[in-house]
Amino acid sequence: MRAIVTNPAKKNSVKLVNLPKPVPKRKEALLRTTCVGIDGTDREINEGLYGTLPEDSDHIVLGHEALATIEKIEETTSGFSAGDLVVPTVRRPCQENCLNCRTGEVDMCLTGNYFEHGIYKLDGFASDYAVSDPRFLIKVPEELKDIAVLLEPMSVAEKAVTHCFKIQQRTRWKPKKALVNGAGPVGLLTTLILRLRGLEVYAAATRTKDSQKSKIVNCVGGTYVNVVETPITELKEKFDIIIEATGNVSAALGTLDALGANGILCFLGIYREKLACEEFGKVLTSMVLKNQVIFGSVSSNKTHFETGVEDMLKIKRRFKSVLNQLITNKIQVHKFREAFQPTHEEIKTVICFD
Amino acid sequence: MRAIVTNPAKKNSVKLVNLPKPVPKRKEALLRTTCVGIDGTDREINEGLYGTLPEDSDHIVLGHEALATIEKIEETTSGFSAGDLVVPTVRRPCQENCLNCRTGEVDMCLTGNYFEHGIYKLDGFASDYAVSDPRFLIKVPEELKDIAVLLEPMSVAEKAVTHCFKIQQRTRWKPKKALVNGAGPVGLLTTLILRLRGLEVYAAATRTKDSQKSKIVNCVGGTYVNVVETPITELKEKFDIIIEATGNVSAALGTLDALGANGILCFLGIYREKLACEEFGKVLTSMVLKNQVIFGSVSSNKTHFETGVEDMLKIKRRFKSVLNQLITNKIQVHKFREAFQPTHEEIKTVICFD
Repeated sequence: MRAIVTNPAKKNSVKLVNLPKPVPKRKEALLRTTCVGIDGTDREINEGLYGTLPEDSDHIVLGHEALATIEKIEETTSGFSAGDLVVPTVRRPCQENCLNCRTGEVDMCLTGNYFEHGIYKLDGFASDYAVSDPRFLIKVPEELKDIAVLLEPMSVAEKAVTHCFKIQQRTRWKPKKALVNGAGPVGLLTTLILRLRGLEVYAAATRTKDSQKSKIVNCVGGTYVNVVETPITELKEKFDIIIEATGNVSAALGTLDALGANGILCFLGIYREKLACEEFGKVLTSMVLKNQVIFGSVSSNKTHFETGVEDMLKIKRRFKSVLNQLITNKIQVHKFREAFQPTHEEIKTVICFD
Repeated sequence: MRAIVTNPAKKNSVKLVNLPKPVPKRKEALLRTTCVGIDGTDREINEGLYGTLPEDSDHIVLGHEALATIEKIEETTSGFSAGDLVVPTVRRPCQENCLNCRTGEVDMCLTGNYFEHGIYKLDGFASDYAVSDPRFLIKVPEELKDIAVLLEPMSVAEKAVTHCFKIQQRTRWKPKKALVNGAGPVGLLTTLILRLRGLEVYAAATRTKDSQKSKIVNCVGGTYVNVVETPITELKEKFDIIIEATGNVSAALGTLDALGANGILCFLGIYREKLACEEFGKVLTSMVLKNQVIFGSVSSNKTHFETGVEDMLKIKRRFKSVLNQLITNKIQVHKFREAFQPTHEEIKTVICFD
């Protein structure tokens, strides 16, 4: 079967290879991959910045954002049958089976010894076939088949928003205004989720106001801010929720000023650059005097995928085809290299196996 | 009556003056002050770094940590009678009566237009008599009369710990180890509260291991860390909860490294120094990959004072006279200036009016 693999130890080693079709163990499902989405993590793994090989292997199959059909399943008590449309979750429990992994909150693993399909010690789904324990599969309704490849980034956005609301149960809180910094797929999906929750949402990015990103924000009733014209530090609004999804340290710094009293700020990026915060004392004092919370969020678990399915259905009913507009590039497997050279107007590139 | 006043606009203007005895309005209680504790905020107000005068006044009566007896009360439905031992809360609702102020969470005021006795636009309790709306008084049992002057800093510590636990309801969480940075009254009271909650507690400060602070930490089963000998960055432990109560930016920075996976860090200080965080990207990425929360906390509300009374009773039963050991200096009103020149071994200085 065809598989897109790389070796995180070698820069730009992504390639298409032929691998034997996997044989599922007794309780596993055999999956036929429909398509995989490619994101910044895939590109960073290919650039040798991230990722870890499976044990005893010299490559890792990429692809942690997948949509697939169940080809074969023996376990009749799993609730799945052949032909079901599914999305596999990414992170799997740690070897130690810690408190959180044991109870399904794998995204909050305490040991760091978890596994992640296509990222960390487990092959991903960028291959014609793959296998998975059915306990980590999410059933997807047929009406979402065109967009369900977005469910993995959607789950990351759902976790961020869910944690904001859970954390803020510490106090009486009626959030009105949200700012989403960064309009990649996670930023845009967060914008959609916050609009569903009834918030006034500003989405900020570097693209122009006639870009596809800007159009998507406007079409769901959000306000698009071109930060090249209006830096976040110049916005007059103060926000109850800020989601920082750029991965850019100076952009992250800029958001701190825009957070209102009792506000909450979620960081979602991997911030690689070295950049000093010159006024760290001022940041801390402002946090104290305004009772603010900032937190980091990574990965997601099954509940976030499930909420993602519900929200995708709601978005489809309320905002029609907006989710389809996020998928800007669909390419065939043999053209996989294009997915690793994103264009300026790309939002989500999907590699199709079917 | 005697009153200790200052003008925040003038450095070192603290003085003892004679003021008319206040006349309570119909629903107010007349209080006879027993004593007031002096803390860093009082000293900063006297240094001209903080505080705001009451409207149409050229001085503010200091004293936001008070213990008093009700001298007179007309409102029979208030639940109070003359002779009751009480502690007044500090912050009072904002002019706009915002969502949080309206519902008693004055510490989470959304407008910033709150009032604070002895700090911000309201006279404090460092005078022979004072008045208060009985809704903001906390009744104190007689058995706490020697230590109840600590109830205000206790309430600040209770808020910090309560918010840690409330915020962490976002996930399955069984905290084991806590670090309290700073062993002033709030740091030590936080240490006591966390010990009551069953945590293994490290308390870090600059005093030697034979200091009173170290003895207090040891006597409640905590581990005292002299940061001059062992900087926090050299501790091998990772902590589930960190409370930063030094107000020192570089100390605050040092605590970030000691926070474990899914951990929570609360900042309680006012961080005035200018100090850069050279590796802000690294701090953010670590927060993301470890799902960490950091938050700031200021002031407290009635519920935190009430929890404080309950915890003081528990501490007295379990750790005997440890709370008395926090009150290192008791001085008479005419010697009030001594309270503004703390000694090296001071923990809490109290000015006695009775």
